[in-house]
Amino acid sequence: MKIIVQKYGGSSVADTQKIKAIARKISDRLDGGNKIVVVVSAMGKTTDGLVRLAKEISAEPDPRELDMLLTTGEQVTAALLSMALRGSGIGSVSLNAYQAGITTTKEFNEARIKNFKKDKIFKFLETNDVLVVTGFQGVTDDGELTTLGRGGSDTSAVALSAALKADCEIYSDVDGIYTADPKIHPAAKKIKYITYDEMLELASTGAKVLHSRCVEIAKKHRINIYCASTFSDSEGSYVVENTIDQPVVTGLSVMENQTQVTITNLELDYSLVKTIFEDAAREHLNVDMISIINTGDTLNISFTIIEEKKKHIDASLKKMLKHLKGWNVNYHSGYAKISVVGVGMKSSYGVATRFFGALGDTPIRLVTTSEIKISCLLEDRYKEKAIKSLIAEFKL
Amino acid sequence: MKIIVQKYGGSSVADTQKIKAIARKISDRLDGGNKIVVVVSAMGKTTDGLVRLAKEISAEPDPRELDMLLTTGEQVTAALLSMALRGSGIGSVSLNAYQAGITTTKEFNEARIKNFKKDKIFKFLETNDVLVVTGFQGVTDDGELTTLGRGGSDTSAVALSAALKADCEIYSDVDGIYTADPKIHPAAKKIKYITYDEMLELASTGAKVLHSRCVEIAKKHRINIYCASTFSDSEGSYVVENTIDQPVVTGLSVMENQTQVTITNLELDYSLVKTIFEDAAREHLNVDMISIINTGDTLNISFTIIEEKKKHIDASLKKMLKHLKGWNVNYHSGYAKISVVGVGMKSSYGVATRFFGALGDTPIRLVTTSEIKISCLLEDRYKEKAIKSLIAEFKL
Repeated sequence: MKIIVQKYGGSSVADTQKIKAIARKISDRLDGGNKIVVVVSAMGKTTDGLVRLAKEISAEPDPRELDMLLTTGEQVTAALLSMALRGSGIGSVSLNAYQAGITTTKEFNEARIKNFKKDKIFKFLETNDVLVVTGFQGVTDDGELTTLGRGGSDTSAVALSAALKADCEIYSDVDGIYTADPKIHPAAKKIKYITYDEMLELASTGAKVLHSRCVEIAKKHRINIYCASTFSDSEGSYVVENTIDQPVVTGLSVMENQTQVTITNLELDYSLVKTIFEDAAREHLNVDMISIINTGDTLNISFTIIEEKKKHIDASLKKMLKHLKGWNVNYHSGYAKISVVGVGMKSSYGVATRFFGALGDTPIRLVTTSEIKISCLLEDRYKEKAIKSLIAEFKL
Repeated sequence: MKIIVQKYGGSSVADTQKIKAIARKISDRLDGGNKIVVVVSAMGKTTDGLVRLAKEISAEPDPRELDMLLTTGEQVTAALLSMALRGSGIGSVSLNAYQAGITTTKEFNEARIKNFKKDKIFKFLETNDVLVVTGFQGVTDDGELTTLGRGGSDTSAVALSAALKADCEIYSDVDGIYTADPKIHPAAKKIKYITYDEMLELASTGAKVLHSRCVEIAKKHRINIYCASTFSDSEGSYVVENTIDQPVVTGLSVMENQTQVTITNLELDYSLVKTIFEDAAREHLNVDMISIINTGDTLNISFTIIEEKKKHIDASLKKMLKHLKGWNVNYHSGYAKISVVGVGMKSSYGVATRFFGALGDTPIRLVTTSEIKISCLLEDRYKEKAIKSLIAEFKL
């Protein structure tokens, strides 16, 4: 018995016609004696609609109740898809987080999957050819409903693949992974094979195809992910452990709405650095592109956050550093972060030279690098030109 | 600690403004140190919308998957109401069927409540002043989601009252129980007290305020039910065990879309009667107003069903009686059943005389009676006149 895990995103299940089309697609895949475990998102803009209802009730909806609300979205899709499959004579059953035994940690709105009750899943597979599981959600050991946050359904699918030791196919309205966002840069090319590490860098630097949490799990459990379009037969992209004949740079990603936070003239005490970033983590503020300069008698710290968190970090910094004198903080918004990623960088020289060469005289505000990535921060108005030059330079 | 169970129907929670108004209403009731367990229906026309989606998938949606679909409706309301309560600083928690431990039998779409896990409810009440429980649904011992069928949320509320030994308040857009349907007969009067038996007869003969299943449970566990309008302070109606100073007739109800089924010339074998009604029960066909006449050498059987089941019963009869000869079946549709109900009938004479006197020369097709009820079947075109005469005769 070969098990395949498939995941269908919100736009793929936006209406009942599409759900019926997916039922046919699944039915075709059963022919070889496969069993299919399908993970579904909420239909179209359902989750947005539910969030809007919550905001009508309260500007800051209670996180526990928000998860009770949001988890209904995927259950609707799962029930309808299983209904369509049963209507075509296929043995199918829809399962919510309780029924599938998806246990998570206790953080509402951003829980992490701890475990799948595999026995339950295998038991259901004995009597059914297809299981339709609600993505994006789980249940704590206390029976509380949780959601996994952004990209949660992808994470559900890959975690399920890991538990069942099955390949994972992720279907959406995008037909694969591209060297740059094809909606903005039509010249971008589809990547056939990409490594986990490259995909992780691309995902964490702004590419929206797969969420980094889901790639992390795939990497840990060596699950091959296939990303393709739901309603097209064109071949998609594979996320795998190793690729042969690796280009130096595989892809480019862009993250907008960046604010640069610069703290200057801070007293020379490195424990302050620890305090600042620990506090940011506790407040769930994602800081990025950290750069620290020791001027000899003071510390200058610079990092980026997304624009909407500016007030939040400002309040946090002022509270934390209020007993100190002489320091300053300033904020520059309207920046974009551009990253190029490729495992080939590890074994190639001169990538940085080519990178900065392509950018020419564009004023760069911050630079960070990893073994397989170079990122730079620049004003929005220089973004388009910079991306074009990098795509040309690295033949993306 | 006094516990009150309250139930709010679909039109009472139709939008977020109404949900917030209910949160305020609940909050006011907490003042006396009460704890409140609230049972909610799905918002407005949500359930209809979900059924429409299911019908787009399949003309006859799979019953199990239909319940997976429909149960999401009440969870949305419960989450939003609890969110509104928490937003006002009230300790509240929403609970779905799993979390509240509402176990039912296994019949999808028409399950019956078996049990509430009282310990769970009391545990939640230790740390919360309000619990918001999803009505209309439960979970089987195997973890399958079920719904309770028509009037299911009322049933959930009364069953919960029975488990917690609490009074039950049912709020809707109707401000009480009337002697006849006030939407059709504006002269109908509000009843302050009505007995379980009267309410049962009214409910089972067409009154829509409370479903008979919920009144049965109330009667069995002696739970007082208070029915009132959600957004008005006018006093509602009480369903209780005994009332003092009982009028002979308490109320009148009407059931439309009735079809009379008449089987004539059936061979004189009473086991056939048993077979016919057993089969109808197995097929979930509600038959009513049964009348059987032994002509000496044949049996004539007449009964009513709702019009939409005509084809269904016809197929069933033809299959069941195909080995017999000489019998005939015919159907007359477009009938209405009018019933008058009152425990006072038990101790009063001449009620039947007054009933038939009021109807005058109206052609009556069938009559059935119980200790506290008289029902008659007549053509739709005589309905209005008959109702007016009965309301006048019994001062309803």
